[in-house]
Amino acid sequence: MSREKIFFTPGPSELYPKFEEFLKDFVDNQFGSISHRSAAFKKICQHTDEQLRELLAIPAENAVMFTGSASEIWERILMNCTELETFHLVNGSFSKKFYSYAQSIGRHAHKFEKPMGEGFSYSEIKVPEYAELISTTQNETSTGVQMPEADIHKLKKNNPKKIVSVDMVSSAPIPDIDLSLVDTAYFSIQKSFGLPAGLGVWIANEYCLERAEAINKKGSIGSHHTLPELWAQSRAFQTPSTPNVMAIYLLGRVAEDMNRRGRATLQKEVDQKAKKLYSYFEKKDGFSLGVAKPEHRSRTVAVINTERASSEVIAALKEKNLIIGAGYGPNKESQIRIANFIANTPEQIDTLLNAFEELF
Amino acid sequence: MSREKIFFTPGPSELYPKFEEFLKDFVDNQFGSISHRSAAFKKICQHTDEQLRELLAIPAENAVMFTGSASEIWERILMNCTELETFHLVNGSFSKKFYSYAQSIGRHAHKFEKPMGEGFSYSEIKVPEYAELISTTQNETSTGVQMPEADIHKLKKNNPKKIVSVDMVSSAPIPDIDLSLVDTAYFSIQKSFGLPAGLGVWIANEYCLERAEAINKKGSIGSHHTLPELWAQSRAFQTPSTPNVMAIYLLGRVAEDMNRRGRATLQKEVDQKAKKLYSYFEKKDGFSLGVAKPEHRSRTVAVINTERASSEVIAALKEKNLIIGAGYGPNKESQIRIANFIANTPEQIDTLLNAFEELF
Repeated sequence: MSREKIFFTPGPSELYPKFEEFLKDFVDNQFGSISHRSAAFKKICQHTDEQLRELLAIPAENAVMFTGSASEIWERILMNCTELETFHLVNGSFSKKFYSYAQSIGRHAHKFEKPMGEGFSYSEIKVPEYAELISTTQNETSTGVQMPEADIHKLKKNNPKKIVSVDMVSSAPIPDIDLSLVDTAYFSIQKSFGLPAGLGVWIANEYCLERAEAINKKGSIGSHHTLPELWAQSRAFQTPSTPNVMAIYLLGRVAEDMNRRGRATLQKEVDQKAKKLYSYFEKKDGFSLGVAKPEHRSRTVAVINTERASSEVIAALKEKNLIIGAGYGPNKESQIRIANFIANTPEQIDTLLNAFEELF
Repeated sequence: MSREKIFFTPGPSELYPKFEEFLKDFVDNQFGSISHRSAAFKKICQHTDEQLRELLAIPAENAVMFTGSASEIWERILMNCTELETFHLVNGSFSKKFYSYAQSIGRHAHKFEKPMGEGFSYSEIKVPEYAELISTTQNETSTGVQMPEADIHKLKKNNPKKIVSVDMVSSAPIPDIDLSLVDTAYFSIQKSFGLPAGLGVWIANEYCLERAEAINKKGSIGSHHTLPELWAQSRAFQTPSTPNVMAIYLLGRVAEDMNRRGRATLQKEVDQKAKKLYSYFEKKDGFSLGVAKPEHRSRTVAVINTERASSEVIAALKEKNLIIGAGYGPNKESQIRIANFIANTPEQIDTLLNAFEELF
């Protein structure tokens, strides 16, 4: 059936155009009933693994693992890859939450914090000597600030013994993060992959595994979804506990379709839409861009300041079945957030901007 | 479309008869795109909460919380409700895994272990003095052994200061566990609720919350899905991180349908089917019951010894599109497991037994 509303919310968001086709295949094949220890499940898991490796250029050495959410992965990274000290680049609500997770489980957590809407200049970053982890957020969903890929790569190059983690929750598979350089990265499927929520994807290299094994000898790395167990199971296209089979299946189908279209094509389309969005709001009366520096503006989540209360803007667009997001946290009323995910077609972006032109 | 295969696997298993109808409603309403902070999501979450409270007679005092899986709940109970010592009634692979989780996170874990296929006599259970948690498994999915509800209630009555947890993963909503007596219980949705996997449901009382808050003052209760945070969010029909919205929605619809049919009716139907299954295999040449004592035989997962290799039995039935489970772990080849969930209609059980009669 045709979808009545168009979602530009920063996730959950508009579903991938072929979502219903893939879902129908899942149902028709009765995959909701198969054992997660069956050959049929392993085949599904292997397909998703292979398609993600192709799409994101994941090295053969790395493991691709599934969890309940990206937030769960924060805790797993902390428990499996750190013992004492962590360092967090904080410039929004999600990078801050990872930092607070580190404090909650008793790590001595350092942060370098920027006001919301600002990104990091590489030269300003001073990594604490004893930090075992450098947490970077490639795309801050709350503020629409991105960190250039080259800066993330440089951080690892200049801190080879520290684990560099990359939050790609709302940007994967768009950014060109070199997964053979960084140690671990993670994302959710309800953002740029255009799927219903309920799965986190965790990519990690052998250095992360070594750390987990070393820490495990001295203390505890937890009991559920430990890295060594997730890793070993993933090598057999299995999971330690019963996973969200439907999400793993759908993700494989979406990734396959993205590979067919070609990642470069997807990136180009996203960038063209982003350019159109930012150019429009730069000039539009009553609105301005939430992120001043062009190189820090997210390609996938546009954050826009609004002089009218965001609730008013959102309500007017909702009348036209166009659903956008409010600002996050303290910026709830002063900002709007517009997802520019792969599932949002260029025509949808035009429809949205035409509505802005008509309404405001 | 009509389903080709009938699943009697002990979960994931046969889907609830109305699964496709409920899924269509989810898709048609575009619930896969809604924000988990929206009023629409809260309404879904509230509906599921209310239907589960009615179905399972959950006291108003208790919280109903959602996680990625039941295994995740094991770790959350250990981290939030225990500090030093735990006690586990172990009589199969899943109760043993909970015990090993406790060891992995550094608890002094005690166990009282029975051979696979045997249950516990209440009088034999000696609870260690300093154990903070008594872990019971109402239904051991690996062995088909159940623990009578009255024994679980008695354990709490005689150990009022200890947290009594009940694994109902593959039996809820069938057993009459009094949730105003025990402290915490949990289940998965891919068993008796007949849904695709990817959601754990955690029920806990205020005593669990008090323990978590007390432990949190002295040490760490973890960072992700802590009980106080899950609890607070659940009171507002919210979740700390983006949940499996589809599963929460489908669970609410299934629970509502179960309430319409009436839990007593469902219990009666399950018991009649169980009686038929056990009577058949008790007399059938080449097969015998995996659980000797009638009071310990699971109502929802029948475990049957087989003289032929289970792989041979499973393959022959598969030819007829009837899918049953192998024995678990060491009993893989010597046992078969047959789910007797709510989604398995009396007609399906007849079809299965007729096939046994024809084939063996």
